[in-house]
Amino acid sequence: MIEGVKQQKWWGWGEDGKSYSHHDKPKFAPFVKKMVGVDITAAVPPSPRFDDLEVPASQLGEGLRGELVAILGEEFVQTDDETRVVHAFGKGVRDLMRVRAGQLGRLPDVVLYPGSQAEVERLVDAVIAADGVLIPFGGGSNIVAALEAEPGETRQVVSVNLGRLSRVLEIDESSGLAHIQAGVFGPDMEDQLNAQGWTLGHHPDSFVWSTLGGWIATRSSGMQSDKYGDIADIVRGLTMVMPGQVLTLRPLPSSSSGPSVREMVLGSEGRLGIITSAWVNVHRLPEVRELQSYFFATYEDGLKACEQIMASDAAPMMARVSDAVETQYIMANGKKSSRIGSLSSKAIQKIMEAKGWDLEKIAMSFVGFEGSPTHVRYEKGLVSRIVKANGGISVGKGPGTLYDQKKYDTPYIRDFMLDRGLICDVSETTTPWAYAEQIHTNTVARFQKAMDEIGVRGVVFCHLSHSYHSGACQYFTFAIADDSENQMATYDVAKRVIQQSFMDNHGTVSHHHGVGEEHSPWMDQDISPAGVFIQRKLFDGVDPGHHLNPGKIIHEGRPGISSNSQDA
Amino acid sequence: MIEGVKQQKWWGWGEDGKSYSHHDKPKFAPFVKKMVGVDITAAVPPSPRFDDLEVPASQLGEGLRGELVAILGEEFVQTDDETRVVHAFGKGVRDLMRVRAGQLGRLPDVVLYPGSQAEVERLVDAVIAADGVLIPFGGGSNIVAALEAEPGETRQVVSVNLGRLSRVLEIDESSGLAHIQAGVFGPDMEDQLNAQGWTLGHHPDSFVWSTLGGWIATRSSGMQSDKYGDIADIVRGLTMVMPGQVLTLRPLPSSSSGPSVREMVLGSEGRLGIITSAWVNVHRLPEVRELQSYFFATYEDGLKACEQIMASDAAPMMARVSDAVETQYIMANGKKSSRIGSLSSKAIQKIMEAKGWDLEKIAMSFVGFEGSPTHVRYEKGLVSRIVKANGGISVGKGPGTLYDQKKYDTPYIRDFMLDRGLICDVSETTTPWAYAEQIHTNTVARFQKAMDEIGVRGVVFCHLSHSYHSGACQYFTFAIADDSENQMATYDVAKRVIQQSFMDNHGTVSHHHGVGEEHSPWMDQDISPAGVFIQRKLFDGVDPGHHLNPGKIIHEGRPGISSNSQDA
Repeated sequence: MIEGVKQQKWWGWGEDGKSYSHHDKPKFAPFVKKMVGVDITAAVPPSPRFDDLEVPASQLGEGLRGELVAILGEEFVQTDDETRVVHAFGKGVRDLMRVRAGQLGRLPDVVLYPGSQAEVERLVDAVIAADGVLIPFGGGSNIVAALEAEPGETRQVVSVNLGRLSRVLEIDESSGLAHIQAGVFGPDMEDQLNAQGWTLGHHPDSFVWSTLGGWIATRSSGMQSDKYGDIADIVRGLTMVMPGQVLTLRPLPSSSSGPSVREMVLGSEGRLGIITSAWVNVHRLPEVRELQSYFFATYEDGLKACEQIMASDAAPMMARVSDAVETQYIMANGKKSSRIGSLSSKAIQKIMEAKGWDLEKIAMSFVGFEGSPTHVRYEKGLVSRIVKANGGISVGKGPGTLYDQKKYDTPYIRDFMLDRGLICDVSETTTPWAYAEQIHTNTVARFQKAMDEIGVRGVVFCHLSHSYHSGACQYFTFAIADDSENQMATYDVAKRVIQQSFMDNHGTVSHHHGVGEEHSPWMDQDISPAGVFIQRKLFDGVDPGHHLNPGKIIHEGRPGISSNSQDA
Repeated sequence: MIEGVKQQKWWGWGEDGKSYSHHDKPKFAPFVKKMVGVDITAAVPPSPRFDDLEVPASQLGEGLRGELVAILGEEFVQTDDETRVVHAFGKGVRDLMRVRAGQLGRLPDVVLYPGSQAEVERLVDAVIAADGVLIPFGGGSNIVAALEAEPGETRQVVSVNLGRLSRVLEIDESSGLAHIQAGVFGPDMEDQLNAQGWTLGHHPDSFVWSTLGGWIATRSSGMQSDKYGDIADIVRGLTMVMPGQVLTLRPLPSSSSGPSVREMVLGSEGRLGIITSAWVNVHRLPEVRELQSYFFATYEDGLKACEQIMASDAAPMMARVSDAVETQYIMANGKKSSRIGSLSSKAIQKIMEAKGWDLEKIAMSFVGFEGSPTHVRYEKGLVSRIVKANGGISVGKGPGTLYDQKKYDTPYIRDFMLDRGLICDVSETTTPWAYAEQIHTNTVARFQKAMDEIGVRGVVFCHLSHSYHSGACQYFTFAIADDSENQMATYDVAKRVIQQSFMDNHGTVSHHHGVGEEHSPWMDQDISPAGVFIQRKLFDGVDPGHHLNPGKIIHEGRPGISSNSQDA
């Protein structure tokens, strides 16, 4: 590990020693038992031991090593086993299953930690000259297999960790723009911005363990995107190191200068170069920030309310609504002592029952407001009328505040579940509003049918997470009880039916996780074969030797999901 | 001409028989006289006569003609002289000067009017198979030389007029999306949408004479973009016919599916294919729509107010402010009987004088509001406070309403002026807010210096036209008194210093007019050589034979502005 560069545990999400706990959440174990039949209170095997892994040796040649050491210094050219294993994967559940099973795939031969853009330029040229493969690495939180070399890659594989490029370089206070290095992690960046009274307002679930460069390379979106925009809106200019040249896009609010090169770099997942810095929209910290909580009789009522909020004069910073099962999950995850726990309190329950609601079908919603006290009051009034018109009730600020505090802890639960033979993952999509209900109903049904056919127990739930004028993102979480040898195949079936359901119900392959290898089999259906043709021409034209993270987005061989499942 | 397909006059803007008039505008002639020394009341030469042109013969071969007739029918394969001349140019002032002088350049050999997407598919393949060149044509309002074949093009040149593809195909009322054919003109489209209670909200100056497909191909922006977005935001899906295949991007509110193919088609100016339809965001007609007018002591105060409006909780649908000279121009253009004329009325003048304002420096502003009556009142209150904080005064709704009615008539003035030896044109750019004042001051100064050096009289004025979180578009209009043989060279100097000033002051080549050949010399400076490299690889990969509107955006030979000026 390099001082000052955060690194996740090799076998799971986040910080070493930190994990999910169900203590003080008395309803959680019964909820899991009811949903998938697993007793999470039973004893579990100990954490995987690094010493049990068989780590293939680095294939870095002495020639390239010498050049890289000359550019970066010995300390920043790492070939030790743990560093290479950490950089071999993202944190998709497929990655977690494989690394736990000791299936390491094609590890990088070296991990580099450049300390300046000039060093990135020099290392890119050195690696290309040596016919190597370059894979940029941010926080390592990717869940679509965008960080892994191709199986059987014979060239030297170089992972480039941008973690030392972590400074907010400049804030243009008049324009509300900041120039920030690409390797900065979310919390560090916000600390630097907040200290000067500013915020980016970009808060993906992965916030603690992801970087600005990673957000750009994957077209990330944060929880407050309804106000602050997706990363594609936030990024106004950027610098990307390419073989032999540097792309410099100056910060511009808008431009008509041909096909957007900015929008080609966004989502490029390392296939065009290594992003080293970006100019991003930043905002003054809001005077007031409030998350208001509501309940609806059903998820469909909640969807309808969100659609109407988007068509109204109100512009909240977030609007989120969970389906019935996710609502049960949230309430089961509430601490005994917390207000989420008390949501099912007699008083609220009585109101719901009085309204004739089926408590198994209720949908919980959070709507966020920011601005002056007057503005927040005004917008809350607009939203409140829409909530009421759709039969919803307000339950105040408590649950939203708690959600806000705990929002980044969710990913830890996957490791906890995997320890107990439960495969958990997420898939998200957007559709026009007209198909929002349909894609939810059909995706849940197809997942359940597929699990029934295999004969395993599984559960899927969902929330609407981001809204747009013409539609919304729905974010599905699924859990499958399978600790057999067929675990990976079971997962593949689940992932496959969900992604195909997205395609069949007017959705896209991903709203903000990217394509990687995991989603590449659906690209033809998503953007049509001609769209894939255009992307391929772009990649082949810029990188004819396929040195830049080859195989991602457009896969020339076996597509990721089949490929990996056959490897397993 | 084809029935149902609008066509502009061959020698100027818009409808035959319609022109600018200064009658009933007693202050206009003195204003022009004062600014550039030209007496616009003097007698003018008669309009150009088509019969005076020497029109080169069509080089369409019998083979290709036969195939095209088989696909489209005789009526929709036009090779007559006037049709070919109309389709040879856009309406840039360079185009107008050349066509008036009988310098026709490389005319298209044939103009096609397909009636369906299937016909577009068949004609594209036929033209490519015959090694021809395809140039898509919408309303013909382009001002950056994007519609003209390369001088000396030896292959058959085919202009494809999309005007028969003019229907709103479908409105998805739940999603606020409409599927619309690309050849529809602005007013026809709004009529079709309004009839069902909807609007696109996209109102560029060229609205009457431009089409949906043209807006997409050039990254257009309308006057209400602060609310409705640039066309890049509005377009959610599209269909584009490419050689041998059709690109189909389904309507999606947002997506993370690699480099954005949608954003590659936007601004592609015919270099990737022919756009045949698009899915666009549409909105319910607003309950209330108001344009409020304000005055500031100086343009700089007005800029500051717009910047603060964007940083505030208010979100008006437009905010526009004119510099001192443009304010004088607007007032000079007011009809004797109109309220704009009365703006300089004693009462308002007295208020301004009481505030110590220099009446030569005042800046006029329009801010637009839409929504429920409550919402409009709320936002007007927020804006009003910002206007006051910057020393501005409100003068009510009158001037804005009048501006709104006349907003599409401005382009006719260029022909009127050209008749009188005055070259008029526009150039627009965006910068971050931090450089808004600087780019205005420097561009005006450099233009004046350049005109002084040549020894001609010229005037340039400007308004802020579109606002974003991080900056704004400023739209410059210039007029030069030169009816000599050096007219074109004089124009080139003016255009060149303005564009170079944009580059030197943190601006972009264009905010919404596109690149064409006119702006291609500045692309290296705008998006860096690596950005041009990426665009070139995209074009070359998709169209290796350079059949699709070659020479636009990236020019392989002499860049447009020099090229055309040497032709002149």
